[in-house]
Amino acid sequence: VKCEVVAVGTELLLGQIVDSNSSWIGEQLALAGIDSFFQTKVGDNLERMVEALETALHRSDAVIVTGGLGPTHDDITRDAIAKVMGVELVRDDELAGRIRAMFEVVGREMPDNNLRQADLPEGATPNPIQPGTAPGLICEVDRGGAAPKMIYAVPGVPWEMKKQITGGVIPDLQERAGVKAVIRNRTIRTWGRSESGLAEILDEEITRLDHTGAATIAFLASGWNGLLVRVTAKAASGAEVDEILDTEQARIMELIGDVVFGFDEDTMESVVLQDLRDRGLTLGLAESLTGGLIASRITAIPGCSDVFRGGVIPYNRELKVSVLGTSDIPAVSEQMAIEMAEGVCSALDTDVGLAVTGVAGPSPHEGHDPGTVWIGLCINGRTDSAHLSFRYDRERIRQFTCISALAFLRNRLLSGDREI
Amino acid sequence: VKCEVVAVGTELLLGQIVDSNSSWIGEQLALAGIDSFFQTKVGDNLERMVEALETALHRSDAVIVTGGLGPTHDDITRDAIAKVMGVELVRDDELAGRIRAMFEVVGREMPDNNLRQADLPEGATPNPIQPGTAPGLICEVDRGGAAPKMIYAVPGVPWEMKKQITGGVIPDLQERAGVKAVIRNRTIRTWGRSESGLAEILDEEITRLDHTGAATIAFLASGWNGLLVRVTAKAASGAEVDEILDTEQARIMELIGDVVFGFDEDTMESVVLQDLRDRGLTLGLAESLTGGLIASRITAIPGCSDVFRGGVIPYNRELKVSVLGTSDIPAVSEQMAIEMAEGVCSALDTDVGLAVTGVAGPSPHEGHDPGTVWIGLCINGRTDSAHLSFRYDRERIRQFTCISALAFLRNRLLSGDREI
Repeated sequence: VKCEVVAVGTELLLGQIVDSNSSWIGEQLALAGIDSFFQTKVGDNLERMVEALETALHRSDAVIVTGGLGPTHDDITRDAIAKVMGVELVRDDELAGRIRAMFEVVGREMPDNNLRQADLPEGATPNPIQPGTAPGLICEVDRGGAAPKMIYAVPGVPWEMKKQITGGVIPDLQERAGVKAVIRNRTIRTWGRSESGLAEILDEEITRLDHTGAATIAFLASGWNGLLVRVTAKAASGAEVDEILDTEQARIMELIGDVVFGFDEDTMESVVLQDLRDRGLTLGLAESLTGGLIASRITAIPGCSDVFRGGVIPYNRELKVSVLGTSDIPAVSEQMAIEMAEGVCSALDTDVGLAVTGVAGPSPHEGHDPGTVWIGLCINGRTDSAHLSFRYDRERIRQFTCISALAFLRNRLLSGDREI
Repeated sequence: VKCEVVAVGTELLLGQIVDSNSSWIGEQLALAGIDSFFQTKVGDNLERMVEALETALHRSDAVIVTGGLGPTHDDITRDAIAKVMGVELVRDDELAGRIRAMFEVVGREMPDNNLRQADLPEGATPNPIQPGTAPGLICEVDRGGAAPKMIYAVPGVPWEMKKQITGGVIPDLQERAGVKAVIRNRTIRTWGRSESGLAEILDEEITRLDHTGAATIAFLASGWNGLLVRVTAKAASGAEVDEILDTEQARIMELIGDVVFGFDEDTMESVVLQDLRDRGLTLGLAESLTGGLIASRITAIPGCSDVFRGGVIPYNRELKVSVLGTSDIPAVSEQMAIEMAEGVCSALDTDVGLAVTGVAGPSPHEGHDPGTVWIGLCINGRTDSAHLSFRYDRERIRQFTCISALAFLRNRLLSGDREI
């Protein structure tokens, strides 16, 4: 089965939004073992949407359309599909009721426009997964072949789209395709070595895999989420694929294990939280240059409150002294970072205090260039520090400081274990 | 003249790279007044690249192809174009010499592969701009029309691509098209009303514009960056376009001005920072449920330190009492939100204290459902509060709380002005 992706929205053509939906869908199709050879973007124009859908149906067996399912006048994906199917739009009363109920639950009145979302091309079925007010569509299009061609419409809102794709579209596609081959990948997350550095160490292994064809290795720089090593394997069953991935992961860990902090959905903050939890330690943060960025990442994790007690953002230097009780010294200094870490342990009554101070830029501060960063750490009264120097813009200096500070804490926890 | 974009690369289809090149090119075309109705992604496969090019040439007058001009064997854009033109590839000795010279300048030996980059489809001319080793191609394709159809090939490497587009492709396209029209847009940022609610209010105006054709209005939900209303206009000169946009903006402001917080690149936090700066007020934050998210957004803005003194993240309830001096009351309550706001004014010595407390989920807390949020505000000793109730997941509860809390502060500053 070949399945194309069509992303709808004039704002995509005008470059006002980057179409990351199609990329994500393309990845899901690849992982599900479904071929996908073309992706198209088209504006909110009925005639051209019909043209794009016809072209896609001509080249492929199925099309996933994302976007244009909202309640407003420029949301015309439903109309375009009806035209391609040669049918009318019909209001689905059950859907209409469901949408109305969603508004009632939150105590809001439903604008009449939203009823448009209950209009389905005749013969289409709604996607069984409907996380928001926009129902997805599953439409069979008869083109004279043995099996009907398929159009799947999903919303453009990423979280709604993702749930409908994984819960409704991919399973339906796989069932129709009778897909048996299982493709899976494993992501090995690293921090602390460059991409070319990793590539050099893994060079022999990559060449070996090229010959055996058992799996492939790819690198993926993803900013403050780490530098990822992705292993992909294909086999007849899930068990076989997992065995290949396990073997390959073990080989890679032998080569670069020192910079690996996690796998798949792990993040540096989820791993550090667990490291602290395992040791029964509580955490407090003192964030100057990152201004709450580390805390916001940690508190994004449900259940963090057993480890994370809180933080202080002493953005103004005076607050470092008055709230954290540091000496009256320059903000961008090793001593300040250490005293902030000690201070946060006292002020918030935590076992561990992690502090960052420095210059995010764009201008120098206290005579230091943007990218000058000090990390301070206090674990049960024992202090430590690290100096970083980044040559990036403000946002990346802040982001890379986050993951670097957490990585520093993690390495100290692990080396503390070794010392005992 | 209609010009499509075709992005080449299997990694784009597999979702390993998001195709931001096409978005950027789309924006340049729009700004240059050139219609662009379709964008396509296709893998490194000769037959399918030819198919994508043929489809594009059929629908449009010109195609910009990005990617596949490198020196390796899977770089076959040159071959695909030659096939579409019905000609052979011919080595251009002058180009070959230029590429060789680039390697000599940096003291490296040229791999033989790179000579492939000097192979041009017969009749094609190189793009006059060549920042890297990959020459761009300008190709006339005779399809029997009065004017030839055009294929422009540019590299996939963003900085090389951008220079070739602005320096070579757009000027050639505009000259051939005799384009004079200028297209610009304006983004009006709102918070506080649903998309369908806005659409209903603006319905008459949208219908009116449909008739006059002077401009178009589109809605764009962008999460915690607000719900955007985008006005796009086209005219013969920049001055005329700006006049249309100004007029349209004024009309829209009359209708929905109460929920508009900014324009174009404004963000809620940049607008609030400026509102505070204008009034000579300093800000402190007490973030429980958002855990530093508001502070991290504010400190992302260079120069925020004249207004923003700092914040406290009393994630654990004990810290609300010990650090902010609140009463020993439940965390999820109006009284707690107000006392946190007062407490942060004292603790951080600020004019304004903004506090949020509530339940981010996924589990209930203190008997309250996820999405239960209290905002507390203290401006020069005068307190205020607001209650929110979201039915989203953890991340969106936190994000929407951020923009809602800042919007609440902003509205109080504005209504304070009105009272005086």
